[in-house]
Amino acid sequence: MEMFGDNCCPPPCNTLGFLQKNNSMEEKGRLSGQKNLLSCDNSDRDARFRRTETDFSNLFARDLLPAKNGEEPTIQFLLEVVDILTNYVRKTFDRSTKVLDFHHPHQLLEGMEGFNLELSDQPESLEQILVDCRDSLKYGVRTGHPRFFNQLSSGLDIIGLAGEWLTSTANTNMFTYEIAPVFVLMEQLTLKKMREMIGWPGGEGDGLFSPGGAISNMYSVMIARYKYFPEIKTKGMSAAPRLVLFTSEHSHYSIKKAGAALGFGTENVILLSTDERGRVIPADLEAKIIDAKQKGCVPLFVNATGGSTVYGAFDPINEIADICEKYNLWLHVDGAWGGGLLMSRKHRHKLNGIERANSVTWNPHKMMGVPLQCSAILVREKGILAGCNSMCAGYLFQPDKQYDVTYDTGDKAIQCGRHVDIFKFWLMWKAKGTVGFEQHIDKCLDLSQYLYNKIKNREGYQMVFDGVPQHTNVCFWYLPPSLRGMPDGDERREKLHRVAPKIKAMMMESGTTMVGYQPQGNKVNFFRMVVSNAAVTQSDIDFLIDEIERLGQDL
Amino acid sequence: MEMFGDNCCPPPCNTLGFLQKNNSMEEKGRLSGQKNLLSCDNSDRDARFRRTETDFSNLFARDLLPAKNGEEPTIQFLLEVVDILTNYVRKTFDRSTKVLDFHHPHQLLEGMEGFNLELSDQPESLEQILVDCRDSLKYGVRTGHPRFFNQLSSGLDIIGLAGEWLTSTANTNMFTYEIAPVFVLMEQLTLKKMREMIGWPGGEGDGLFSPGGAISNMYSVMIARYKYFPEIKTKGMSAAPRLVLFTSEHSHYSIKKAGAALGFGTENVILLSTDERGRVIPADLEAKIIDAKQKGCVPLFVNATGGSTVYGAFDPINEIADICEKYNLWLHVDGAWGGGLLMSRKHRHKLNGIERANSVTWNPHKMMGVPLQCSAILVREKGILAGCNSMCAGYLFQPDKQYDVTYDTGDKAIQCGRHVDIFKFWLMWKAKGTVGFEQHIDKCLDLSQYLYNKIKNREGYQMVFDGVPQHTNVCFWYLPPSLRGMPDGDERREKLHRVAPKIKAMMMESGTTMVGYQPQGNKVNFFRMVVSNAAVTQSDIDFLIDEIERLGQDL
Repeated sequence: MEMFGDNCCPPPCNTLGFLQKNNSMEEKGRLSGQKNLLSCDNSDRDARFRRTETDFSNLFARDLLPAKNGEEPTIQFLLEVVDILTNYVRKTFDRSTKVLDFHHPHQLLEGMEGFNLELSDQPESLEQILVDCRDSLKYGVRTGHPRFFNQLSSGLDIIGLAGEWLTSTANTNMFTYEIAPVFVLMEQLTLKKMREMIGWPGGEGDGLFSPGGAISNMYSVMIARYKYFPEIKTKGMSAAPRLVLFTSEHSHYSIKKAGAALGFGTENVILLSTDERGRVIPADLEAKIIDAKQKGCVPLFVNATGGSTVYGAFDPINEIADICEKYNLWLHVDGAWGGGLLMSRKHRHKLNGIERANSVTWNPHKMMGVPLQCSAILVREKGILAGCNSMCAGYLFQPDKQYDVTYDTGDKAIQCGRHVDIFKFWLMWKAKGTVGFEQHIDKCLDLSQYLYNKIKNREGYQMVFDGVPQHTNVCFWYLPPSLRGMPDGDERREKLHRVAPKIKAMMMESGTTMVGYQPQGNKVNFFRMVVSNAAVTQSDIDFLIDEIERLGQDL
Repeated sequence: MEMFGDNCCPPPCNTLGFLQKNNSMEEKGRLSGQKNLLSCDNSDRDARFRRTETDFSNLFARDLLPAKNGEEPTIQFLLEVVDILTNYVRKTFDRSTKVLDFHHPHQLLEGMEGFNLELSDQPESLEQILVDCRDSLKYGVRTGHPRFFNQLSSGLDIIGLAGEWLTSTANTNMFTYEIAPVFVLMEQLTLKKMREMIGWPGGEGDGLFSPGGAISNMYSVMIARYKYFPEIKTKGMSAAPRLVLFTSEHSHYSIKKAGAALGFGTENVILLSTDERGRVIPADLEAKIIDAKQKGCVPLFVNATGGSTVYGAFDPINEIADICEKYNLWLHVDGAWGGGLLMSRKHRHKLNGIERANSVTWNPHKMMGVPLQCSAILVREKGILAGCNSMCAGYLFQPDKQYDVTYDTGDKAIQCGRHVDIFKFWLMWKAKGTVGFEQHIDKCLDLSQYLYNKIKNREGYQMVFDGVPQHTNVCFWYLPPSLRGMPDGDERREKLHRVAPKIKAMMMESGTTMVGYQPQGNKVNFFRMVVSNAAVTQSDIDFLIDEIERLGQDL
């Protein structure tokens, strides 16, 4: 096992040698034509690993473990990759680095210098593989950069990253305790903790981590159907009356997608009207329930959104729950985006009533900064997930194992193999404590309020809705000077509709920042700013506003 | 940016210092009570990183990036994690290491020494986090160990591992080109290459990587339904006649699960009889189609399995395709397990006719050794995935972006966010070439034939089916001496049924190897041996047989 020589003390670098890469090479993103050098300059970054002098140009994947004598090249190769990754991590947090280096699809497909996406029959050297790794990062997008505001998921949590590296190395599957004992237990304990925060008595209930909020929401519809019409599992939807689902017109499109996939049909997903802040109007729900019943449909399921995608709106859960109780409907809360606020004593009141839900979607990979993917579906009634989905495959869920097979949770899922999404989250919770998540959430909401205060009365800005945002979403139009005096009307609307896409395109071309935009209902394109990255400061908010004005002033 | 001092040349270790951990500490899986030492012994493993002297007991997650002065602790922490991981990698390939260190759920829940799964409000030190990382691996299962045969997915590919570390670091999402330009293109090119191997003209068609074979199979049923009854998307299953699906009694349970989830009902998933090798009998398919039609049902979809889970059987695709053409049915090939054989000139004939399928599931994370998860759904008809699933969410799929938005592929999926599963696979393909995958597959099949030849006439063994296995699955009973003279009958069957679970339990307790078992139909528990790990050699096969005999001889 000991194969790295007898001497743990590194000799001077000009005798043993440390791989040095000069900066310009790194900027070019390749090693091509350069062998490992023994030079000793004052760039010490790459000297941090005691690498042997490894010429990767003559090494191939077949030389790595499990190859004979593969241990040393394996470790050397992994260290080289880690060097690329740690440099990427450093730069991600460095505001002098661009968020992205944009290229059009045809440009990347034609092949950038030395970076060819095409696959071939013959292997590439490990040197080229390392170049490919560098270039894949170089032409990507730094979603952890403090000025990347484009998505609800952003940031690069170091503990979460370490957790994900470990998960990859463990390379196992969640379906049985047999092959994932530690991860299965972590999942159970973490889900219980999440249920306690929801407020279900004793944290009782059920749940799973699923591949994203859309699938978690799909689970909620499936189990609601199973609860009220269990015979559909065997007989299909034709055994049931025409079932309808209710969700806000501001809710995530995954509810509609689930309606289509599960055989309800999108026409049977009834959209609820909202107030000007994007919150469901409970009276509209009740009216539409009554209307559906009069049409001979059977109302089944109501989705209340806890933090909508665009406005960050929180539906009034308690009022919706009253109606669900009255009509005996399943109440789901889609807290994919807003669920994290349960961790904040200051903000959790926005989810008041969530304890009355039958199921909850909560994505730690959004507001809580856990690396992608990490989404939980939580269910108040124990056993119903298994009832809904189990098929009792004998080859996987043998009843005659030597351990307590109630820990084999795979049959509750619609997946067979299931990626280990729990470890990074568990590790982050250990490392930060509940209080760490709370501080993170409070800080992000404070930053959003800072932005809101900054622009609400600023010349050239118009808020999409009035009042302090409920979540970190701040929705606004930027009006270039040329539009400011223009009277409201079609021409102004059409021009304004084109402003955000133009600014966004210029942002991406210059690589300085990224923020989302979209139309909503009859509202033309507006910016949706969100904060979920722990690296963001007020200066980054200021930078975004400066950048919008710099790029947009002449439009 | 330069913060590690001016001197790239490491001074002697007793002045700068290298973190040393002695082996016994590592075996105990914890650092507790030990500070970083400046000692210099002849254990050089941990000296490979030029770590600074970092006392993690006083550091917390909040001290890492983006904290001020967080860069150094961040890099130190990540290097410490990498040290844990590379040690794990080394040991995984070391046959003197156990496959697992088994503990019952209650033991792990009660807490092993220093390893407490419970979450708390307050943060743990980074020292404890590192202990948690070590312990999480210690009490897990080494799925990459050369003697881990328990699952269709096994092995630890170093290139794939590096790819997964990079994917975690990039921490992005597949839904738009905007935030995953490189990965989106890699996915497109790789799927095209896979379609070429299937034999669809010009590699044309469509596809996605999905979270596992069960979801890929679910996609196939969804798009078949959309192809024949597009109105179901809007109107639901009640708008359609009673639709039926056909799949072998040996097929994966995910077809049935999809039938339940999508609203067909499990009773409308009709199981087809197989021959003694587990292959669908085409005449039975035709008879059941006719029967279903006579009952007023509408046959929609046939699943042919390319490599069944237990027997490794390949259904006769061409004969099934003839019947599908005759009755105008969707033909899906579930090649989750066997699809990899397309890469082998020697073995791809087992999938002859796959080019006639309308859709194919193919999991590179199984036979091709790609880390979990990596599963493709491939579709012959372009555009149908989008037609089936798109909901055109304005906040994500803006039509007025500055680039060609046909590269925004997220709306084809039932997921919204989608994990980047492509990079590791693309990188492995680059690093091995098609020929590398071919060699891997041929080798695994050779090893299975070695096992088959070894035990087919060996005393105490009985094959579950006759003849050379089609895939790497070798299914057999081990008969302890006490059973060998016993006449066939209920008593012998009952005893034999208990043999495999008992041996398996002892294997797990001793931690020496793991192999799966299950009953099938009226056959009592038998072992299912599979090989997909590149690290396996004939000696590991010999070891397994020795171990079965050692543990089973006195039963």
